Amino acid sequence: MDYQKLFSEIAVESKKVEAIGEVASYIPELRNVDPDKFGIHLATLDKQNYGLGDYNERFSIQSIAKVLSLTLAFELEEGELWKRVGVEPSGTPFNSLVQLEYENGIPRNPLINAGALVICDVLVSRLKNPKQEFIEFIRNISGISSIDYCDRIAESEKLTSYRNAALINLMKAYGNITNDIQVVLDFYFNLCSIEMSCKELTHAFLFLAANGANPVTGERVVNVSKSKRINAIMQLCGFYDEAGEFAFKVGLPGKSGVGGGIMAIHPGNYSIAVWSPRLNSKGNSHKGMKILEFLTTVTEASIF
Amino acid sequence: MDYQKLFSEIAVESKKVEAIGEVASYIPELRNVDPDKFGIHLATLDKQNYGLGDYNERFSIQSIAKVLSLTLAFELEEGELWKRVGVEPSGTPFNSLVQLEYENGIPRNPLINAGALVICDVLVSRLKNPKQEFIEFIRNISGISSIDYCDRIAESEKLTSYRNAALINLMKAYGNITNDIQVVLDFYFNLCSIEMSCKELTHAFLFLAANGANPVTGERVVNVSKSKRINAIMQLCGFYDEAGEFAFKVGLPGKSGVGGGIMAIHPGNYSIAVWSPRLNSKGNSHKGMKILEFLTTVTEASIF
Amino acid sequence: MDYQKLFSEIAVESKKVEAIGEVASYIPELRNVDPDKFGIHLATLDKQNYGLGDYNERFSIQSIAKVLSLTLAFELEEGELWKRVGVEPSGTPFNSLVQLEYENGIPRNPLINAGALVICDVLVSRLKNPKQEFIEFIRNISGISSIDYCDRIAESEKLTSYRNAALINLMKAYGNITNDIQVVLDFYFNLCSIEMSCKELTHAFLFLAANGANPVTGERVVNVSKSKRINAIMQLCGFYDEAGEFAFKVGLPGKSGVGGGIMAIHPGNYSIAVWSPRLNSKGNSHKGMKILEFLTTVTEASIF
Amino acid sequence: MDYQKLFSEIAVESKKVEAIGEVASYIPELRNVDPDKFGIHLATLDKQNYGLGDYNERFSIQSIAKVLSLTLAFELEEGELWKRVGVEPSGTPFNSLVQLEYENGIPRNPLINAGALVICDVLVSRLKNPKQEFIEFIRNISGISSIDYCDRIAESEKLTSYRNAALINLMKAYGNITNDIQVVLDFYFNLCSIEMSCKELTHAFLFLAANGANPVTGERVVNVSKSKRINAIMQLCGFYDEAGEFAFKVGLPGKSGVGGGIMAIHPGNYSIAVWSPRLNSKGNSHKGMKILEFLTTVTEASIF
Repeated sequence: MDYQKLFSEIAVESKKVEAIGEVASYIPELRNVDPDKFGIHLATLDKQNYGLGDYNERFSIQSIAKVLSLTLAFELEEGELWKRVGVEPSGTPFNSLVQLEYENGIPRNPLINAGALVICDVLVSRLKNPKQEFIEFIRNISGISSIDYCDRIAESEKLTSYRNAALINLMKAYGNITNDIQVVLDFYFNLCSIEMSCKELTHAFLFLAANGANPVTGERVVNVSKSKRINAIMQLCGFYDEAGEFAFKVGLPGKSGVGGGIMAIHPGNYSIAVWSPRLNSKGNSHKGMKILEFLTTVTEASIF
Repeated sequence: MDYQKLFSEIAVESKKVEAIGEVASYIPELRNVDPDKFGIHLATLDKQNYGLGDYNERFSIQSIAKVLSLTLAFELEEGELWKRVGVEPSGTPFNSLVQLEYENGIPRNPLINAGALVICDVLVSRLKNPKQEFIEFIRNISGISSIDYCDRIAESEKLTSYRNAALINLMKAYGNITNDIQVVLDFYFNLCSIEMSCKELTHAFLFLAANGANPVTGERVVNVSKSKRINAIMQLCGFYDEAGEFAFKVGLPGKSGVGGGIMAIHPGNYSIAVWSPRLNSKGNSHKGMKILEFLTTVTEASIF
Repeated sequence: MDYQKLFSEIAVESKKVEAIGEVASYIPELRNVDPDKFGIHLATLDKQNYGLGDYNERFSIQSIAKVLSLTLAFELEEGELWKRVGVEPSGTPFNSLVQLEYENGIPRNPLINAGALVICDVLVSRLKNPKQEFIEFIRNISGISSIDYCDRIAESEKLTSYRNAALINLMKAYGNITNDIQVVLDFYFNLCSIEMSCKELTHAFLFLAANGANPVTGERVVNVSKSKRINAIMQLCGFYDEAGEFAFKVGLPGKSGVGGGIMAIHPGNYSIAVWSPRLNSKGNSHKGMKILEFLTTVTEASIF
Repeated sequence: MDYQKLFSEIAVESKKVEAIGEVASYIPELRNVDPDKFGIHLATLDKQNYGLGDYNERFSIQSIAKVLSLTLAFELEEGELWKRVGVEPSGTPFNSLVQLEYENGIPRNPLINAGALVICDVLVSRLKNPKQEFIEFIRNISGISSIDYCDRIAESEKLTSYRNAALINLMKAYGNITNDIQVVLDFYFNLCSIEMSCKELTHAFLFLAANGANPVTGERVVNVSKSKRINAIMQLCGFYDEAGEFAFKVGLPGKSGVGGGIMAIHPGNYSIAVWSPRLNSKGNSHKGMKILEFLTTVTEASIF
């Protein structure tokens, strides 16, 4: 694959995508982002790097971090994890309480908010200092020691997050949250506040393109089976109510965040991250999805 | 990949799987099948064939046929199709009317019953002689001229299929069925009555492992993009409420039927079909899923 | 109570009600009604009659007939009836399949479409000639031998009634319909096609204001307990998703129809019928509800 | 009506009712109540009193208090109230979040938990010292100055009430809660902790049998229209998912509490309270409902 040529084509194509959609507006820190930022970065297993636009600028990765908290919880908890959270697509908008109530407090998967809160509860139980240990985990798998939480964003999230409070209280009522609600929510808000650039994201996630081992350092993050299973969950559940659309048009396991970032994996080949803050009606980056669709269409190289 | 060795291991493993679950019982033709039948067949792009057990015995492929009706409708209708049916997982049991009502008669995807009925409506509109032309399509892509409907099964389905009648009437109320309800239902019942063996299934579906062209004859069935998109739909929607479980444990696009068959695709590599009539609580072949999980686990070769 | 004076006030008030809302339009026979027709009639237990406007003109009583089919089925089937249909308000729009699916084919009450179909199934089972015997029943309790079905309306309903077909097929799938679907639907469409005037309605329903016995003839229609229970069902379920609103503002047991009619009962006092074809967003007569609210407000005489 | 004779019959009948059902068990204070307590008291508009059994013993009135908080909020807020809470039956189990989510944070009625929380929010906004002023209101309408909250029960409720926390957070997310969540919840828990005897309940609620004015003191609590509307809401929404059953079998507006109390009103005649702690599967007093059904059946005197 001639990625250099591909990135030249993306540079042209990216200018054609209409600037539609709005940035997330529920907290000032997201609302104030320049809506026309655009960055994309691809990292291959054989250590090549291709970047375009604002690929070195950090942004709020938001829900993309949920794949990494899942990774750590899966490693710590093994099969027990799946008694408390499912692996099925949600089939309803991303923060719905309906499904949760019909299924007695067991979230459909670890990437919707409810499921991510259960994962946070697991990490709070398993780690001595969850906040510190989790960011160390990300620094370690990415090799970038300056990655950090954004306190200002975490604080803002806290002030508006009544829906997450509703979700966690409902799960607590069903006995599926073991720690103090406020402690778990605090960890969750921190998780969502992490800031990374497209390039940093591709490095942090490269192990999922490499059957679970970091191809740069050789260090194993998770075993082969877990790596495949995390990718499978991303494929089926990574885009809220638009998972099918992403699979259909892009055809890669991936995860989006309301900060406008999308992370995707081509197992055996590369990890790729794109950032464009304008969101479509489903809460996913409009331009990010368009560009990834362009990429897998011209390369004829999705996983399917 | 040493498939011969793999099939020896499967032969051993298949004896270990517990004989749990019951055969589908809503029509006599399915109820009377020997529950302990077991067959598996794999066809590679380079024309190798590996079979085990009852892989040459025909059974009722049921919903597996919905992938083939989707293929033909996608080819005839192009992008217009997706105005009438979605590509998102259903997130609820396979024959639920709830989702359909909340989404104004637009089924979530073409592999749930409601969506398959819309696909049948498309084919009834587009084809002069739908029943004849559809079976010819299957005979053509598989190269097996004896594949046929089972009239007895189609008749039995008609007598019990009040739920499908409810679904199609509801969609008609929303204007998403254009032909006479009885005509569409008749075609649908025929579709579900087709009988094929595991070996025949792998040959009929091999084009989906080959980017849309039959690797034996070289004939193109659909273009690359469509082939990938059909696989994506199977991955996200092929197992009713257990699509996530299949992606998580097996990691291949696939489709099941209540006759106990499962068809799966490893793009770029092979198609595989397994048959074991005992169903789990979600309506998918218990042993079929176990054996496919075994296969992708020992080969470490899912698409993820 | 000086009803004469009350009707003079209603005559004034009825001119003030805004002509908003549209007539039902799903069949030509309802669409073509003069939207500004208005009639009201009140019949007291002591045989007084008060009428205003078009109170002698027949219109399509539609769902109001469901109270009479319920009355007959309750008499024929006694307590057994309540194993097949509930007495709880539906809490969702009037033709929803959702509730029906979650409650395994048992409709919430006999006044929503699904429940009325079960009642029709009971009558089809219990009566030799359901269509003939049912209209005789109405002629008998009202003392008006010319009341009849409207074939033209019944035929029109048949052509558009995919939702009712969906409902009855779903209930058949759950085993809660015992007769042939088409036979039950035919009876149901006839039921909804009956034409009566406001005056005729008040006479037919007067037994429900009189603890179950016709105060004119002295003939008992149902016993005291059943009469009260039918009124209770009307109070809680007679106005689809607006039952609470009607109880809150009017405070009488009643039943509406999409033809613009409303029938209400003041137990121990009178029966009243009003007709105005413009419907509000919930499918109930806009002016009919306003006038009945006016009536119970000025008389300070609801049942509460 | 010979109430003396009626109470003799009730004394006999009450011994025949099977001791089935369990007491509420989610807090120790309710769990430890003698399950076989039974009291009933009736107060007529003409100041007669009839009691039987433990009718002078105080118990936790729980949700029965919601009618009184509604009364006060209706008086303070008038028609504005109904923009924030509906008057329709819920049609689903009493603490469901589903309905609330589908209806954008507007509870169906003021007697389900979500609606009662909105009412509490109104009182917290309108009253200087909500807790003190509310209990004074009850003391005033009942004429009994010793009625009070039970701190122990209020504290216990707080420890287990994750579902109510979920409800109020969800409504806050929709903007339908204006005060601090914890303040509103505290007031709500106090509300539910009030202890009264059957006799005290009948006196506190007698104004609702008397068109809104206390027949003993002559003091007006609410106007005629409001009195009727509160009764209408009780009739349609006072028994969670069993409102229809209570209307059907008893035929009086009423309200139940998980402490085993039921309060009912016969407008123009009497108020009645019954207490028996064993609950049926819907959370209403088993024996309480049986005895009230007996009462309105032998007297042939429901409102219908």
